[in-house]
Amino acid sequence: MNELATLQRILPIFQQRPEITTGPGDDCAVINFGNTCLLAAVDQMAAGIHYYPDTKPERIAAKLLKRNLSDIAAMGGTPAYALLSLASKRADDDWFNAFYYGLEQEARRWNVSICGGDLCALPADGLEDVMSLTILGWCQPGNACLRSNAKAGDLLYATGCFGDSLKSGHHLDFAPRLAEGAFLAQGFTSAMIDVSDGLLLDASRIAEASKLALIIDMPTIPLRNDTDTASAMCDGEDYELLFAISPDAAQQLERLWDFETKLTCIGHFESGYGVTSTDGHNLLKEFKTGYEHRNT
Amino acid sequence: MNELATLQRILPIFQQRPEITTGPGDDCAVINFGNTCLLAAVDQMAAGIHYYPDTKPERIAAKLLKRNLSDIAAMGGTPAYALLSLASKRADDDWFNAFYYGLEQEARRWNVSICGGDLCALPADGLEDVMSLTILGWCQPGNACLRSNAKAGDLLYATGCFGDSLKSGHHLDFAPRLAEGAFLAQGFTSAMIDVSDGLLLDASRIAEASKLALIIDMPTIPLRNDTDTASAMCDGEDYELLFAISPDAAQQLERLWDFETKLTCIGHFESGYGVTSTDGHNLLKEFKTGYEHRNT
Repeated sequence: MNELATLQRILPIFQQRPEITTGPGDDCAVINFGNTCLLAAVDQMAAGIHYYPDTKPERIAAKLLKRNLSDIAAMGGTPAYALLSLASKRADDDWFNAFYYGLEQEARRWNVSICGGDLCALPADGLEDVMSLTILGWCQPGNACLRSNAKAGDLLYATGCFGDSLKSGHHLDFAPRLAEGAFLAQGFTSAMIDVSDGLLLDASRIAEASKLALIIDMPTIPLRNDTDTASAMCDGEDYELLFAISPDAAQQLERLWDFETKLTCIGHFESGYGVTSTDGHNLLKEFKTGYEHRNT
Repeated sequence: MNELATLQRILPIFQQRPEITTGPGDDCAVINFGNTCLLAAVDQMAAGIHYYPDTKPERIAAKLLKRNLSDIAAMGGTPAYALLSLASKRADDDWFNAFYYGLEQEARRWNVSICGGDLCALPADGLEDVMSLTILGWCQPGNACLRSNAKAGDLLYATGCFGDSLKSGHHLDFAPRLAEGAFLAQGFTSAMIDVSDGLLLDASRIAEASKLALIIDMPTIPLRNDTDTASAMCDGEDYELLFAISPDAAQQLERLWDFETKLTCIGHFESGYGVTSTDGHNLLKEFKTGYEHRNT
């Protein structure tokens, strides 16, 4: 199964109630109640795919929550509630204790309440665990940062560094960019995404949703631990924010940016389509291996 | 792993924000915004546990949604939005098409929008699928029907019939009692639960949460297809509603009840504890086998 192709085929069939101004396909659904918007997203992890089964349970739990928080951050929102489904074949009470306490500890750190859950025992001879978390949060109407809101002439900015996420442990240790996302949504950007599937693929999603061409200035991409550009472009699990911003707003942002998190301009949007380097290479083609690796 | 014991140990650790008037442990979480309450619940199914892997995918999808709708019904609420996680090892596009179209068809029937989703490919050598659905809905403040609201002297009423759910196909074909639940919540009851784990166990949860004794009048329990009482008490997956109601309100309800769904008084609450038959048998002990079968 190709997950992305399947979802692209399926998502359009889902009819959305009128208050749902953004349905599935962005980082979160946006449900507009007039004076406020509810944000909702779901994300799952499976043992052996998103984590090693012997990773400490509290780190697995924290990663699951933080991946979802990163989706709220990408909308410029504030998280509030979460619901968890856990299916596991494990028999060790200590594992469950550590998992749930780890989840709660991480949730408190971000002022999120775990308000619902479901637990299911899996057969002993198969998969270790599968877990799914639904995150709910809030944003102000008009402030939701959609992938489709980039304009020709906008610059592409990134928070933080990219690449080497797995080996460095960053995929477990990262902090979701909630404060940064909420700050950016207050007038600096209305087009944002978080990088889970790789800088290149996630950046291309803003370009595609906004019906624009994206030119990436490869040497400007901040690398984690001097990793190579291919890792930075394709590995994913960076959980940084990419956003489109007008050159004027970017000047102001650089002056006002008070976070420790690095802020870098790594490209710009033009009318047209495709994702190229400044010297004209078709990047989605050039990094095809990495791209396909992430999505099959 | 004993799921119930694990959850009972874990649930109290989760700190709830002040607007969450009911946290995990009831059919839904209740988040009170003053003029309205958001209801939220999550429920998962795994192949081989909740359905046969070769069950038609549209029926699997419908069951997953309806199980969650039944939780909204048990609160007296109205469903609105759902988010789906699907982890599957299947490779057949037709299966996914049928699953998602089936889900959407069932969702439209109940005016629910599937506003978010996640899809994950599982290794080919293991479990067929695991799926989790989060349901969101609404109820009026003060109308949420909690397990803990039964009073001594209340009668225990049930909608529909019980037992033989698996063999009869009822566990796939049932209709969640949304209209009935919403009607009941408008003044007739404030203590309700849906029967997923078995009449006896779910009824005992009202008694336990309300700190009351429950006396069940066994011969009054409506049986599906002339099944036996043990099946009706313990099999589960009936997705009927059990609710506590004062004798006066019950008289009025019987006059006003205009649904085709059967309505039956099957017991009453007294001060004390435990669940007994009218002739004094300790039912949780008598049906221990069934009880344990459902929870290990």
